[in-house]
Amino acid sequence: MRANDAYAELERRFRRLNSLEEASAVLGWDQQTMMPPGGARARAEQLATIRVLAHGMIIDPALGDLIPAAGAQSGLDDWQRANLREIERIWRHSTALTPDLVERMSHACSVCEMAWREARPKSDFVQVLPHLQLVLDLTREAAQAKSAVFGCSLYDALLDQYEPGSHAKRVDVLFDDLAAFLPGLIGDALEHQARGPKMLPLAGPFPVEQQRQLGLELMKVAGFDFEHGRLDVSLHPFSGGTPEDVRITTRYREDDFMPALMGVMHETGHALYELGLPRDWVQQPVGKARGMAMHESQSLLVEMQACRSMAFLAFAAPLLRKAFGGEGPAWQADNLYRHYTHVERGFIRVDADEATYPAHVILRYRLERALIGGDLKLADLPGAWNEGMRTLVGVAPDNDREGCLQDIHWYDGAFGYFPTYTMGAIAAAQIFEAAQKADRNVLSGIGQGDFRPLLAWLRANIHGRASLMGGTDEILMVATGRPLDVATYKRHLQTRYLS
Amino acid sequence: MRANDAYAELERRFRRLNSLEEASAVLGWDQQTMMPPGGARARAEQLATIRVLAHGMIIDPALGDLIPAAGAQSGLDDWQRANLREIERIWRHSTALTPDLVERMSHACSVCEMAWREARPKSDFVQVLPHLQLVLDLTREAAQAKSAVFGCSLYDALLDQYEPGSHAKRVDVLFDDLAAFLPGLIGDALEHQARGPKMLPLAGPFPVEQQRQLGLELMKVAGFDFEHGRLDVSLHPFSGGTPEDVRITTRYREDDFMPALMGVMHETGHALYELGLPRDWVQQPVGKARGMAMHESQSLLVEMQACRSMAFLAFAAPLLRKAFGGEGPAWQADNLYRHYTHVERGFIRVDADEATYPAHVILRYRLERALIGGDLKLADLPGAWNEGMRTLVGVAPDNDREGCLQDIHWYDGAFGYFPTYTMGAIAAAQIFEAAQKADRNVLSGIGQGDFRPLLAWLRANIHGRASLMGGTDEILMVATGRPLDVATYKRHLQTRYLS
Repeated sequence: MRANDAYAELERRFRRLNSLEEASAVLGWDQQTMMPPGGARARAEQLATIRVLAHGMIIDPALGDLIPAAGAQSGLDDWQRANLREIERIWRHSTALTPDLVERMSHACSVCEMAWREARPKSDFVQVLPHLQLVLDLTREAAQAKSAVFGCSLYDALLDQYEPGSHAKRVDVLFDDLAAFLPGLIGDALEHQARGPKMLPLAGPFPVEQQRQLGLELMKVAGFDFEHGRLDVSLHPFSGGTPEDVRITTRYREDDFMPALMGVMHETGHALYELGLPRDWVQQPVGKARGMAMHESQSLLVEMQACRSMAFLAFAAPLLRKAFGGEGPAWQADNLYRHYTHVERGFIRVDADEATYPAHVILRYRLERALIGGDLKLADLPGAWNEGMRTLVGVAPDNDREGCLQDIHWYDGAFGYFPTYTMGAIAAAQIFEAAQKADRNVLSGIGQGDFRPLLAWLRANIHGRASLMGGTDEILMVATGRPLDVATYKRHLQTRYLS
Repeated sequence: MRANDAYAELERRFRRLNSLEEASAVLGWDQQTMMPPGGARARAEQLATIRVLAHGMIIDPALGDLIPAAGAQSGLDDWQRANLREIERIWRHSTALTPDLVERMSHACSVCEMAWREARPKSDFVQVLPHLQLVLDLTREAAQAKSAVFGCSLYDALLDQYEPGSHAKRVDVLFDDLAAFLPGLIGDALEHQARGPKMLPLAGPFPVEQQRQLGLELMKVAGFDFEHGRLDVSLHPFSGGTPEDVRITTRYREDDFMPALMGVMHETGHALYELGLPRDWVQQPVGKARGMAMHESQSLLVEMQACRSMAFLAFAAPLLRKAFGGEGPAWQADNLYRHYTHVERGFIRVDADEATYPAHVILRYRLERALIGGDLKLADLPGAWNEGMRTLVGVAPDNDREGCLQDIHWYDGAFGYFPTYTMGAIAAAQIFEAAQKADRNVLSGIGQGDFRPLLAWLRANIHGRASLMGGTDEILMVATGRPLDVATYKRHLQTRYLS
């Protein structure tokens, strides 16, 4: 390293920053899985202290000076250039906001989230409205500051936090296409389903320990590395920890094993992405997952494309029968497949099936765009929500608990996140198709409980590229020959639900 | 707060520092209980990063200037004065060493500990000797720097890290007294034991889950607050976490439930101390446990004084029988008591009984004093060890694995720690006697599974005082009327093992 090697100094600083972020991730995992309730006050302070220190490291003026100096250096390779690009992106996001605004947002979100936890069971949107209004106002203030830095719209500035390089105009094209397609698909799928064989119920109870053992077994089948990760229980399932120590969680119901099992495979998809990131770069911004759409694509690839397929369920059916002592036609692969592909119009996003899920997401995306753009008043949100539900999903709830109060995102200040769910679903279909084309053993392997061909392709084409490219579209171009493209996704839905 | 309130600014800085130390404590707990092996590299870096940041906060020259300014302030109460005293002590320890020396020590200890892990099973002291020599040399260099700051001997500078305000001269008085007493006591106890009823074996296996449930039940009996703590498994049992979120661990053997059960009660004693620290001060140095001797006194009070008593075992015997389906004379309280007070000369400190344990500690104390003082060469350690074992314990091993390679302490750079084990045992006897004198319900409560009288006295007289006083002797003076005093401890051992 040269004495005035600005780039090397940036790497050194971001490596230290990464260690702090990893520490936060482990503390956050512990908070949701292990921590007794009385640890909450101190934990919040530990996390806040680390956050303040990390933020202080980024906004250090000396760091800001290093970025152009590193940019002027010669001899940087592609990964180093890309790392510098990511460093600059993080630096711009962090310095765009005054510490005062960051603190006010943090406080407003905490208060609003607590109010939401009270208001939701009572279905009382009016109670939480003033808190949400403050969160929205501050979010727009932050978006304004960032849009000035990035030269983009307010919504794009928020979207960029979760899905770097994407734009609402791009999302509109994808979602308008889908929005025109979904109501027809859902109607047809329901008709097709009604004409087909009846779904036979699976009789429980299903002891938690058996569910856990089965989950661990199938995680292993999918390629999860238990030297570098573990499975635990939390109220809200998530994938956390660090790339060398991935912590995934699920929650169990004794009367129904199906959600937990597929939930485990979903989080396993997230985990495989983290575990497959290039070890040489894992401590630098360029070595991180590309964004939330790509992350969701990996969980949906494993869950929706691979594990809800007839091929995988044919492999898994004997294991399920063994785990729960199941027998008879209800426990045959075709009936399990019927369960795991059952379509039903419902109010709740997180309970939605694969076919109706994107309709929920499109609704939320359109509403949050209108809120951020100032085209929708919060007081009108419940009405707009139910109207959108009727149009997109075909049903609407008669209360806000099952309506606009169901998701934590906005109440916690996460505007711009929702579209990544369905962008991920689109990408998953494309990626799975490309992997199968590249290696005919991908699907047959899954049918034999051998995920190695799929995983090898993913490592080479997705996981190992981390954030080397600027965005989801660029990775998909190289890996699948096309940017995000609704056509493959639509074909997948038609094949699975109409034939 | 006044604009130039130096004391308030110190509190603010140490509160932030405390949050970082708490974060480290949780990460350290996770490392030993939950972390998959592949997380080790990143975890070491997370902990090192936090350590460097914390150290940087302490040695910040601005902080050094605040200390005399705060000392000159009027209007500070006793707790604030004591807090300032503790802050200054921490600051002097931290600034006495150059960052370079701290890093060289940290590195040397890591290397030496790894070498020790290899050398121990092979009983190969020569293999680890050069690494230990470097650790010893650097430790003496650090002790020299600190002795210059504190104006004390090299050994006292090391001892002060674990047992503030204590001195080798004080330890010598206590340990010389004990060393003259123990060989006779051990011999007499063995004779007395041989004359008494035979110890009946307890037949296993003892399933881990039953052991765990029983441990949880007895933790609850002793007053452990599960809203603020939990019990897990680790290879080396410890008490960790934070005062509002205490994490204790044990390890189980299916063929013998006795070590794990009493191990749980030992760690529960540590935990009750942490849980009883004054909540208002828990984020400041004055709100921490007074030192390692006092900490060990609390674990030994619960384990040795309370739970190995005939009174407690009479209460616990039916619970043990129920947990393991035990019946017959072997499962009567008197036989359980015989197991838990069984004396045997052995080579290994951590397996030693209550009567021989202090002899192990005195040996280590004398050896480490000689090593630090330059009066014993490392090459001569194995011989000196075995000679000391013969004199103090009455047996000596024929290999170093069971001799000077058995404990991690020195190989990890912890010189000056050993005496606190037996200082804690002495204090435990004094404290238990004082508590019984103050409230006659203490012992009868323990016999009925009601620890509230004991805990109430401990909270008022020990736990709640945290580090308000300067050292173990000062706390004991107020709580028991005497500083550390071997007489009560000797009486306790005579009563339990000779009558």
